[in-house]
Amino acid sequence: MKKYTNISDIKNFPKAIQEAIQLKKNPLEFSALGKHKTLGLLFFNSSLRTRLSTQKAALNLGMNPIVMNVSGDAWGIEFEDGTVMNGSTAEHIKEAAAVVSQYCDVIAVRAFPTLTDKEKDETEQVLKSFVKYASVPIVNMESATAHPLQGFTDAITITEHKKNNKPKVVLSWAPHTKALPHAVANSFVNAMQNMDVDFVMTHPKGYDLNPEIVGNTPVIYNQADALKDADFVYAKNWSSYSDYGKVLKTDSDWMITKEKLGDAKFMHCLPVRRNVVVEDAVLDSENSLVIQQANNRTFAAQWVLKTILSNL
Amino acid sequence: MKKYTNISDIKNFPKAIQEAIQLKKNPLEFSALGKHKTLGLLFFNSSLRTRLSTQKAALNLGMNPIVMNVSGDAWGIEFEDGTVMNGSTAEHIKEAAAVVSQYCDVIAVRAFPTLTDKEKDETEQVLKSFVKYASVPIVNMESATAHPLQGFTDAITITEHKKNNKPKVVLSWAPHTKALPHAVANSFVNAMQNMDVDFVMTHPKGYDLNPEIVGNTPVIYNQADALKDADFVYAKNWSSYSDYGKVLKTDSDWMITKEKLGDAKFMHCLPVRRNVVVEDAVLDSENSLVIQQANNRTFAAQWVLKTILSNL
Amino acid sequence: MKKYTNISDIKNFPKAIQEAIQLKKNPLEFSALGKHKTLGLLFFNSSLRTRLSTQKAALNLGMNPIVMNVSGDAWGIEFEDGTVMNGSTAEHIKEAAAVVSQYCDVIAVRAFPTLTDKEKDETEQVLKSFVKYASVPIVNMESATAHPLQGFTDAITITEHKKNNKPKVVLSWAPHTKALPHAVANSFVNAMQNMDVDFVMTHPKGYDLNPEIVGNTPVIYNQADALKDADFVYAKNWSSYSDYGKVLKTDSDWMITKEKLGDAKFMHCLPVRRNVVVEDAVLDSENSLVIQQANNRTFAAQWVLKTILSNL
Repeated sequence: MKKYTNISDIKNFPKAIQEAIQLKKNPLEFSALGKHKTLGLLFFNSSLRTRLSTQKAALNLGMNPIVMNVSGDAWGIEFEDGTVMNGSTAEHIKEAAAVVSQYCDVIAVRAFPTLTDKEKDETEQVLKSFVKYASVPIVNMESATAHPLQGFTDAITITEHKKNNKPKVVLSWAPHTKALPHAVANSFVNAMQNMDVDFVMTHPKGYDLNPEIVGNTPVIYNQADALKDADFVYAKNWSSYSDYGKVLKTDSDWMITKEKLGDAKFMHCLPVRRNVVVEDAVLDSENSLVIQQANNRTFAAQWVLKTILSNL
Repeated sequence: MKKYTNISDIKNFPKAIQEAIQLKKNPLEFSALGKHKTLGLLFFNSSLRTRLSTQKAALNLGMNPIVMNVSGDAWGIEFEDGTVMNGSTAEHIKEAAAVVSQYCDVIAVRAFPTLTDKEKDETEQVLKSFVKYASVPIVNMESATAHPLQGFTDAITITEHKKNNKPKVVLSWAPHTKALPHAVANSFVNAMQNMDVDFVMTHPKGYDLNPEIVGNTPVIYNQADALKDADFVYAKNWSSYSDYGKVLKTDSDWMITKEKLGDAKFMHCLPVRRNVVVEDAVLDSENSLVIQQANNRTFAAQWVLKTILSNL
Repeated sequence: MKKYTNISDIKNFPKAIQEAIQLKKNPLEFSALGKHKTLGLLFFNSSLRTRLSTQKAALNLGMNPIVMNVSGDAWGIEFEDGTVMNGSTAEHIKEAAAVVSQYCDVIAVRAFPTLTDKEKDETEQVLKSFVKYASVPIVNMESATAHPLQGFTDAITITEHKKNNKPKVVLSWAPHTKALPHAVANSFVNAMQNMDVDFVMTHPKGYDLNPEIVGNTPVIYNQADALKDADFVYAKNWSSYSDYGKVLKTDSDWMITKEKLGDAKFMHCLPVRRNVVVEDAVLDSENSLVIQQANNRTFAAQWVLKTILSNL
């Protein structure tokens, strides 16, 4: 594996899940693999889980993590080609990516979408520019349209907790006060499409995700119908894709409640707004897997880094 | 020791002081103890000494420190229970503390008081929420009402520098332009109450600390009387406790001068405003122990981390 | 070497260049030298290359780097002597430098000039205060008037890429929209004056650098004349020194173009504004050495740290 920008970069997804579960049993088994190797973690946006779990994964492999908040620590980066840089940006991505590659053996990048310019967001300009101009492997720590470390984590968590061979997994849109990206939902859909699960999505009309990602996944616009007999309910808010970046609906009727959940397991990528996305009674119950998901972030990242290090 | 939130978490204080002094003689003696263990340092507020000395202590023990400025790096954290999170906070402490516990073997937290809401500050909401919701030991890097790494440090420093069995130690309030917390003063009082010293406090009327902390410690409102025959003078500003968070007095008559100090040793937790809290002539003299105190921060933190690691 | 604040701190410059080139061939040869040693990196300003390359150099030597953005992470630092600190600064450099020295075996500092107060900038107050009040060696990561890690790097890069015994090296001023410091230009001049090169400078009138630094180096005010037969063209903008900190000229006639460059190698410290300082066609060509320069930052810093560590 030369990069990890999308779920599709994992060639054998079920095998990767099993290997990550093995890593979790003995996290220090490959603690010599990353010796004297440096992981640069570049954040264009806030991060808690990704920041800590990716560092932890690197440390488990013996790597040295170097963290940088790009905006505050370094220089404004220009991503447009051929521009006369007489504005606010001080360094072009061509130099920035090539330069960081001189010091880091692997570069991990987080860069959220604008949610105002659909076309631009879909080009994945920041992430793809790093892939193009860096001379070392790039790991996606959440880009404009994908969060594949999260999607892989979720697949690991479902595999660990499933009680039948083909569990029913429901991705349910849930309310939120702010316009949120589609990245987590997209990568979750991608992950489920690569697993042997009975997967359906549910959301209000107007919230359909990118049809190229949805593909043949069934979409049910009635939440109650969709949640019926679910084994896993994955809640996530996202803003409208068709009416790009808009919040069409904020009322609480799509909030996940204990009653709606029934015996299913509850999943969310976090951070989660309590009593907006999901009620306290769900998060505080045994049915919630959100902390187990957070824990698995380490092993998803560790599998990715291990696989990349093995190919350096 | 399962946590270090207050001086009282150290069961045998004189013994801990001696052990910290021993650690200082051979800081790398336990450099294998923390191997593959991670210390998460979470800062809600500015820090120089605590930030560096706690990292240094962790490194001396072979631990991997991971530093995070919570506000800038991660998400706004909600501490109220049962709230509908449709405001500015994006993640509840229940999740945040449990999640960080997945990546860190010990979590250290700095969170200052509001100094406007006495009742809330006294609940120690941030620190206690971490203790409650984290699944790993918590270390207090200065909370609303306590700075026990500083208090322990001060006790170590007095023990090292005392020239008689029962030195006279004076905690003197000193002027400052801003409203400051009570945490350092509180923990210093707690520390002195656990040592064999002749301890008195002096401050203007209206600046009495929390009576539950003061206990039987003598308070002398005349600074000159209090300082008489002192071996150690510990200067510190704090805002009013009774007229909570107010600055009642800023004139310089309570500033510590060389004349007032005489032959006593001068102590301060730093940062210190020169010629406001204490005059240059004191800080620049041989009588000042402030740099030795700063140095001992490493060994106080190292004793705490070592003790916690030994009990993991 | 007890500090590295200026090119002149390197006693035998040609020998140092050769040793750095040797280090580059085997970066981990001295990976035990810095074991249990801590490098504190204190940033008063933004940094990408310096931030990452100095950490990488420290890691190659087995040191533990601790990074701090002083303004955001710690307290406002007072540099004036004898002042009554009742303003915005909370800690005096006397304490700050002495305190950081308790936790770090070497301290590296970045502090840019004001570009408004020439006299103050020339005192190098921040850097020299650290040298004065710290008890450990200080490394200059770019100060008001010097960037000796960059100058050393540039000398290494020219040595590696020169094709004749005494190459012609031209430092050319180039346009920029903002007022920039003189530090990089100053240290490059210092470095070239210590090498066996045919060195000339070219810039518009009004942009003469500090005459004490320029010394006998020829200055040619006609760029075309200066660039003739150049082997290396080093482009850099700086603001006026005589009309201190002013931007006298922003038009593009001094921009480096492929046509002007001819067969010469192009150098720049980065970050560089494309199509303002230099056109795309130069940076995107084989003639550009900017990424090689960035790479050499690691080995310049590593030579400096290694030399300092050897003398601890």
